Amino acid sequence: MTAYLITVGDEILIGQITDTNSAWMAQQLNLQGIRIIGKTSVGDVHEEIVECIRYALSKADLVLMTGGLGATKDDITKKAIAEYLGVGISLHQPTLDRVTYFFKKIGRTVSEMNRQGCFMPDTAIILNNDRGLAPAMWFSVVSENPQLTNNHRPLTTKILVSMPGVPFEMQHLMTDRVLPRLRETQPMSPIVHRTILTAGEGETMLAEKLVDFENTLPAYIKLAYLPSLGTVRLRLTARGEDEKKLIEQVDAKKNELEKIISYAVAGYDDDTMSIVIGRILKEKNLTLACAESCTGGFLSHLITGVSGSSAYFNGSIIAYSNEIKNKILSVSNKILTQNGAVSEECVKAMVRGVIKKMNVDLAIAVSGIAGPTGGTIEKPVGTVWIAAGDAENILTYKIGIDRGRAKNIEFAANVGLNLLRKYLSDRK
Amino acid sequence: MTAYLITVGDEILIGQITDTNSAWMAQQLNLQGIRIIGKTSVGDVHEEIVECIRYALSKADLVLMTGGLGATKDDITKKAIAEYLGVGISLHQPTLDRVTYFFKKIGRTVSEMNRQGCFMPDTAIILNNDRGLAPAMWFSVVSENPQLTNNHRPLTTKILVSMPGVPFEMQHLMTDRVLPRLRETQPMSPIVHRTILTAGEGETMLAEKLVDFENTLPAYIKLAYLPSLGTVRLRLTARGEDEKKLIEQVDAKKNELEKIISYAVAGYDDDTMSIVIGRILKEKNLTLACAESCTGGFLSHLITGVSGSSAYFNGSIIAYSNEIKNKILSVSNKILTQNGAVSEECVKAMVRGVIKKMNVDLAIAVSGIAGPTGGTIEKPVGTVWIAAGDAENILTYKIGIDRGRAKNIEFAANVGLNLLRKYLSDRK
Repeated sequence: MTAYLITVGDEILIGQITDTNSAWMAQQLNLQGIRIIGKTSVGDVHEEIVECIRYALSKADLVLMTGGLGATKDDITKKAIAEYLGVGISLHQPTLDRVTYFFKKIGRTVSEMNRQGCFMPDTAIILNNDRGLAPAMWFSVVSENPQLTNNHRPLTTKILVSMPGVPFEMQHLMTDRVLPRLRETQPMSPIVHRTILTAGEGETMLAEKLVDFENTLPAYIKLAYLPSLGTVRLRLTARGEDEKKLIEQVDAKKNELEKIISYAVAGYDDDTMSIVIGRILKEKNLTLACAESCTGGFLSHLITGVSGSSAYFNGSIIAYSNEIKNKILSVSNKILTQNGAVSEECVKAMVRGVIKKMNVDLAIAVSGIAGPTGGTIEKPVGTVWIAAGDAENILTYKIGIDRGRAKNIEFAANVGLNLLRKYLSDRK
Repeated sequence: MTAYLITVGDEILIGQITDTNSAWMAQQLNLQGIRIIGKTSVGDVHEEIVECIRYALSKADLVLMTGGLGATKDDITKKAIAEYLGVGISLHQPTLDRVTYFFKKIGRTVSEMNRQGCFMPDTAIILNNDRGLAPAMWFSVVSENPQLTNNHRPLTTKILVSMPGVPFEMQHLMTDRVLPRLRETQPMSPIVHRTILTAGEGETMLAEKLVDFENTLPAYIKLAYLPSLGTVRLRLTARGEDEKKLIEQVDAKKNELEKIISYAVAGYDDDTMSIVIGRILKEKNLTLACAESCTGGFLSHLITGVSGSSAYFNGSIIAYSNEIKNKILSVSNKILTQNGAVSEECVKAMVRGVIKKMNVDLAIAVSGIAGPTGGTIEKPVGTVWIAAGDAENILTYKIGIDRGRAKNIEFAANVGLNLLRKYLSDRK
């Protein structure tokens, strides 16, 4: 099965918003084994939307649209779909009932504008939206199959779905309405995924170590590399007819893979580095604090991005000035003057200092030159020292490559999390 | 002039990366008065890229492509362009010379793969890339104008440009090569922009206050609202023939606009809230620290995202646990038990505590319930108290709406920055 994505809205074409919906939808569809062959953003222009729907349906089995709904958009997507299908638009009473009920609950009445929003193309199957007023619309589109010759053009049924562009609403509609309905109506062969989160090793290095392994994979099991700064996800995907057998085989391959690069395996599935270290700290009943210089709070932000992190994370000292490193973190003046704030000795002292100050078991410390200014010949921009451990056993790591200020900060924070993971796995 | 964007790459269609290039390019083109009429992402499939180029050139005057270059992509974009134009691909000696020089500098020789990358479609005008190996390619495409009838189809010249997909390289090529060349070769009428950064007021509220003002705008001056969490940019765009007159008129309108919403004006042009407060703190020679609970480091991260922030930012205490609030920030046990950690009294005490601890003039403090767990009936998820000021004069603000954990953190940090801005502007 193939899919095409259409996003409607001038706000995307003027660069006012970055289209994050498409990437999310692509990931979800991929997990179902649906291949996306293209995506197009069109403005709020009736003819162009109609043309785009026609094009997308000529290319793919499933076309998913977001945006172009609501009063400020004059429901332009609905009108374009109705024109393309050659159907009318009329009041959908169940939707009006839902909207009326919603407004009654908050003590308001339905305005004419809200009522207009309850008009739907006549052949739409309405999929209720629990997070907003505009439902999803599902259309079965019967069309000629253009890939066959003139003499053999049986009718094929394709699917067109329209959803609101608000990510929170779209994600609910995809997860709870569209994907389940797709699985019901379309015979799809089973697909099994196994994802491994690796850290501290680049994509190329992993790929080199996995050359032989990849050669052993049967044609129905694929390995994908999904890299980001400091981590690479490895995803095994198996497709076939016998789900039970697929699971057995992909699990066996996953175990093989893990053995080859076991030193880099940090977690599984949707794990992030912060989730991984949070889980280990909770298990071992350990507490954590950070001492950050050049990362300026970003490392702590990653750790506290996890709900429930207050169970193991006490807090941090962001020591941007040397005065704070000395007075609050007790880094000696000797280290600060002789070794400098960007040194192995300094980050080790920061670990010890914040452990004492915050009364925790473990700490991560970072100090470096994020740039673009502040570099020297000895310590150029991009030089970052990182340390993690307890008051006695501290692992350290030095970054020596400048990736630009924002990436230097992001990468250093990720290295810090991985260094703590290594410490925890050594400690056992 | 109209433009169409094409991004090439399977990695976008499987959702592995979010396409941020398009939004950036759209913003830059809009500032030049070039309207984007659509954008499409295609996979690494030769025929589909060719088809997409044909479609885009039939719709727009300028087509900008990114991605699909380099050895791992088998230079698929070059091949598609060459096929569409009906030209060959051959070695471009000046590019090979540049690549050879680059590798010589780092003590390496040019591999066969690198050499292959120096082959270019024969009609390409090569625009050198100072940040990477793959240059931009510029093509003048002479085509029939499909919008006129058969009897009157003069040839029109359109422009096709291909750039690497790496954002850092693409941005350089757009800014330093493509846009200057566009301005040289295309007669464009002057366009003047004035941007105002506002904070603390929603888009709808601003729009209501600016209804009368908008009615006074002549047709050649447009007002755009560019909202994000906690701030709204207002952009006036004037187009016409006489640039000097345009500047006078748009500046006059900008002054009128500023008077109406002066209380919300935080900065201009590319200012962010962190840049704005950094500038004021430097001017007034004041130092800053933060005491963060629920924002967990994100507020400090925003402040230290600005290069040179060490001139006014000393550091922060991230006090995730009450113990740290008490022991390091000296928030009294009385406040923590009677008022609670999420209270006006607590954030005021946090401001005073961190000012003393970090020996600074000013501080911002945040404490709240980011969620999704931890809420109570009295203090539901989303309740966040924010304070900013000096040890004596402290402004406070309470957020009472739950936007989801990540947005709660982001919004609270932005409110904190705006509260400090207000304090600084009151102080004068």
